[in-house]
Amino acid sequence: MALRERILAARGREAPDLVLKHARVVNVLTNEIYPADVAIHEGYVVGIGEYRGPNEIDLAGSHLLPGLIDGHLHVESTMLSAGEFARAVVPHGTTSVVVDPHEIGNVLGAPGIRMLLAATDGLPLNFFVNVPSCVPASEMENGGFVLTASDMEPLLDEPRVVGIAELMNFPGVLAADPTVLAKAELGIRRGVPIDGHAPGVTGKDLCAYVAAGIESDHETTRAEEAEEKLRLGLWLMVREGSTEHNLKELLPVVRRLNARRALFVTDDRAPNDLLDEGHLDHAVRLAIAEGLDPVAAIAMATINPAERFGLKRLGAIVPGYRADLVVADDLQNLRATLVFKDGRIVARDGAPSFRPPRFDYSAALDTVHIGPLDASDLVIPASGARCRVIGVVPRQIITRHLVEEPTVRDGRIVADPARDLLKFAVVERHKATGDVGVGLVKGFGMTAGAIASSVAHDAHNIGVIGADDADMLAAVQAIVEQRGGLAVVRDGAVMARLPLPIGGLMSDLPFEEVAARLEAVEEAASALGCTVWRPFMVLSFLALSVIPALKLTDRGLVDVEAWELVPVGV
Amino acid sequence: MALRERILAARGREAPDLVLKHARVVNVLTNEIYPADVAIHEGYVVGIGEYRGPNEIDLAGSHLLPGLIDGHLHVESTMLSAGEFARAVVPHGTTSVVVDPHEIGNVLGAPGIRMLLAATDGLPLNFFVNVPSCVPASEMENGGFVLTASDMEPLLDEPRVVGIAELMNFPGVLAADPTVLAKAELGIRRGVPIDGHAPGVTGKDLCAYVAAGIESDHETTRAEEAEEKLRLGLWLMVREGSTEHNLKELLPVVRRLNARRALFVTDDRAPNDLLDEGHLDHAVRLAIAEGLDPVAAIAMATINPAERFGLKRLGAIVPGYRADLVVADDLQNLRATLVFKDGRIVARDGAPSFRPPRFDYSAALDTVHIGPLDASDLVIPASGARCRVIGVVPRQIITRHLVEEPTVRDGRIVADPARDLLKFAVVERHKATGDVGVGLVKGFGMTAGAIASSVAHDAHNIGVIGADDADMLAAVQAIVEQRGGLAVVRDGAVMARLPLPIGGLMSDLPFEEVAARLEAVEEAASALGCTVWRPFMVLSFLALSVIPALKLTDRGLVDVEAWELVPVGV
Repeated sequence: MALRERILAARGREAPDLVLKHARVVNVLTNEIYPADVAIHEGYVVGIGEYRGPNEIDLAGSHLLPGLIDGHLHVESTMLSAGEFARAVVPHGTTSVVVDPHEIGNVLGAPGIRMLLAATDGLPLNFFVNVPSCVPASEMENGGFVLTASDMEPLLDEPRVVGIAELMNFPGVLAADPTVLAKAELGIRRGVPIDGHAPGVTGKDLCAYVAAGIESDHETTRAEEAEEKLRLGLWLMVREGSTEHNLKELLPVVRRLNARRALFVTDDRAPNDLLDEGHLDHAVRLAIAEGLDPVAAIAMATINPAERFGLKRLGAIVPGYRADLVVADDLQNLRATLVFKDGRIVARDGAPSFRPPRFDYSAALDTVHIGPLDASDLVIPASGARCRVIGVVPRQIITRHLVEEPTVRDGRIVADPARDLLKFAVVERHKATGDVGVGLVKGFGMTAGAIASSVAHDAHNIGVIGADDADMLAAVQAIVEQRGGLAVVRDGAVMARLPLPIGGLMSDLPFEEVAARLEAVEEAASALGCTVWRPFMVLSFLALSVIPALKLTDRGLVDVEAWELVPVGV
Repeated sequence: MALRERILAARGREAPDLVLKHARVVNVLTNEIYPADVAIHEGYVVGIGEYRGPNEIDLAGSHLLPGLIDGHLHVESTMLSAGEFARAVVPHGTTSVVVDPHEIGNVLGAPGIRMLLAATDGLPLNFFVNVPSCVPASEMENGGFVLTASDMEPLLDEPRVVGIAELMNFPGVLAADPTVLAKAELGIRRGVPIDGHAPGVTGKDLCAYVAAGIESDHETTRAEEAEEKLRLGLWLMVREGSTEHNLKELLPVVRRLNARRALFVTDDRAPNDLLDEGHLDHAVRLAIAEGLDPVAAIAMATINPAERFGLKRLGAIVPGYRADLVVADDLQNLRATLVFKDGRIVARDGAPSFRPPRFDYSAALDTVHIGPLDASDLVIPASGARCRVIGVVPRQIITRHLVEEPTVRDGRIVADPARDLLKFAVVERHKATGDVGVGLVKGFGMTAGAIASSVAHDAHNIGVIGADDADMLAAVQAIVEQRGGLAVVRDGAVMARLPLPIGGLMSDLPFEEVAARLEAVEEAASALGCTVWRPFMVLSFLALSVIPALKLTDRGLVDVEAWELVPVGV
């Protein structure tokens, strides 16, 4: 543990490994910024004051802040392998993440989660994991695996596993479903953090959800919701993802209440957004631009997440803490010019200065298996005078539950691009059950063709949206051929594709290439007339049965508020 | 775990056990006070809002605050058995304590600590324990037991044990003494809180102390010390004990830095002060009187200590948290009118409404064993032109290292009450080794007689101060006869005594009687001319070798700053 060496270096009796001279230290514990040298030894900060040593870096008055900690994200949403994920986020100053690997959990179960832990070992990034609590997200969808409380418990013994991931099945909690409560009880019994997910839950129901021992929420979209949740003791995870933009709405509440239990998270962040906008640093910049005090904003990305998860010796620049540090010239427009992990430089001027170890993902490359599929599977028989339609909400992952007049042809409800009514299908892809759910969606704007993806939360069946049934079938077939990923089809031909062979979720390509290819498939979707921002991410959330209001799984349409499967026709 | 029942009660589907109607809820998480009903079920808060039930208590607008949490105290300093301690503090709103039982640890070792855990089981008080790290406090004193890191580790597995208690041996830490560092390493390895004790440590030495993984300090007496410690990440325990009064000096720093890592502690509190002034509520009242916002003051006595020690579901009034609650009419002059522990009333209008279970302390009643002792043991041979004198500092436990001219008679340095120079001896009392340390003390003001105590931190040998050698011997003899405790002797006769048979530290009498008898011995000391406040507590700290500047143990005078034994003559 080398405490002796740290003590000697701190006292100036031996030379520290490294001295960062003339820093402006951002102290998130005292809300101060002051000049000092920072001495680092054997990966830890050991001294703050005046230090000298054979290895000095003169920061010349640049700010030094703690490495950023993203308190909630799904690494699979970046579509990157573990090493490429680190290459993507570390240059943005992220040195720790708390990950809920429930996507890989749905596809590959506990072995998939262990694989991810192995794949992230040795990266210049603290990769903490919460054990997924909702695999599957609900009983209204079929994924590759089911994780019960007893499946979850052994995972809590793994190094770097910190707690129980988001209990998304809030209707199950409120109904006191014993299989759901067993997961909360596991967390309470083990004394570990339990994350929540309670979109729109309020009043006595919210009290009940919190009384079950659940401690956080990252699904808050409205200011009054944020206030209520903070008052009831929940950690408010202010989310700024790729399709989830909650920061501007929630920040005034956090400021007014001087909330100690508030932190920034990204939840789901697309690789091209990582490239273009950044990672958690983007949220910090946005908060500062919105008027939050810079030190308070940095606290919400450092010490607050560290405290929320009990991450020891992380989140501040003080002796005895790990030397995970970010150098930035200007706090108003925070950009990491240097990033240190455990006292070593791991990124410089936005570029990684490490090469991640290679990892063998071969156990995860054969996960896409569908049953026989033909045009009959996409039929929606006309029934009732009206029909339910999933309404896309721009920049959010909630949907509207629309009821419209169907366009009927030959006794069947059909896509009607002129009215922006497209068909949406979810095709089971784990066990080749042949199950297919079919519905309608409004808001994509496509006038032709189809887009498909094996990333479709959380069961990650194949989701496909189309103006044309034949193109929808061809798009699904393309996904099967490429063993998962994204595809855009028009007139039977694949216009663009992004293979995601690792669990049908992640690429084995370099970060920059994944981002470029994602741009290409998005452009191909635009060429079909698609008008939504990040269409594949929006598509992926249309299958998530625990986010209001209307969703579609391989089992059919889910009315999330009523918590039941419903027919398309009304 | 009954989560199901809590959920049903929270949702209003089943009646909660108890509803506190019309509370003004003090929310330490959002810094707010607002009206609400609080629903309690099976010992937990389950709902905040509008609730009804068959059992309601109308608080009629009284404040409802979380039960107070004292983050650092030595229960033995109250001289009370466990049950009587609970009777003394619970009516003041204290519902949790984090105790360092190092006094009993010095006398009875790990079995003594386990005895205390057993004795506190079932009390209406969360009695958390940190494992003593400095038994003995240093190598310059001999107590009854030695606790090494490997002796400490099994204690960490006991229920209600939360961490490593104060690493008082700060010179040992700074010297990188491997036996001391092994204790810090134990805490780091186990991921538990590690408390500190660093009076006056500053600059690079303080960095080194913190770099060793130590996380708190309760020995801060000066504002600039507080600022430096908070900046370096230490939890600042603002102490308001019986002889340690640091609150007024430190509070401005806590306010200015809006310090999240600040909490109130009592450390050592005499039973008569508990009776007259209160417990942690006294610190809260004092802070509010000094101008601290009442909610901030309450946070420093509730959520801040809960967070410092990772105490789950304690320290705030939110669903899922234990229903440890205090009702108080007026926050400006905080007095608990009702105290709830796990949802049950345990005190009303300052009086306990519970009867603690009886505990069998018989294993702890025979701990006072001295070697042969006569007048020759108290001789200080004259050597050198000057002599070292321990200078008492009013209302503090630090001392001054005075150098004065000795009063010499027959080649011996003697007490000289006219100059307020008294003799002070420490007589080993655990293994009858016959070791006696003798020195001089200034500041007690006694003109005759002697006072003695088997409470003498931390080895708890017998400390005796006197104007007369014969009375000193008689006072020690009185302590031996009564199997420990306090005694005042004049002209060979015992004027007053307080037996403390449990480990020579604690009484088996009711709280009120202990307080009254302590008053009586203090009055007897006053009758000898003693001028110091709480003379027995001051005496008890004169033997503590890890508090600057000059102390006396059974091995002799300790120059704490030089960290060595020194002769009386200079």
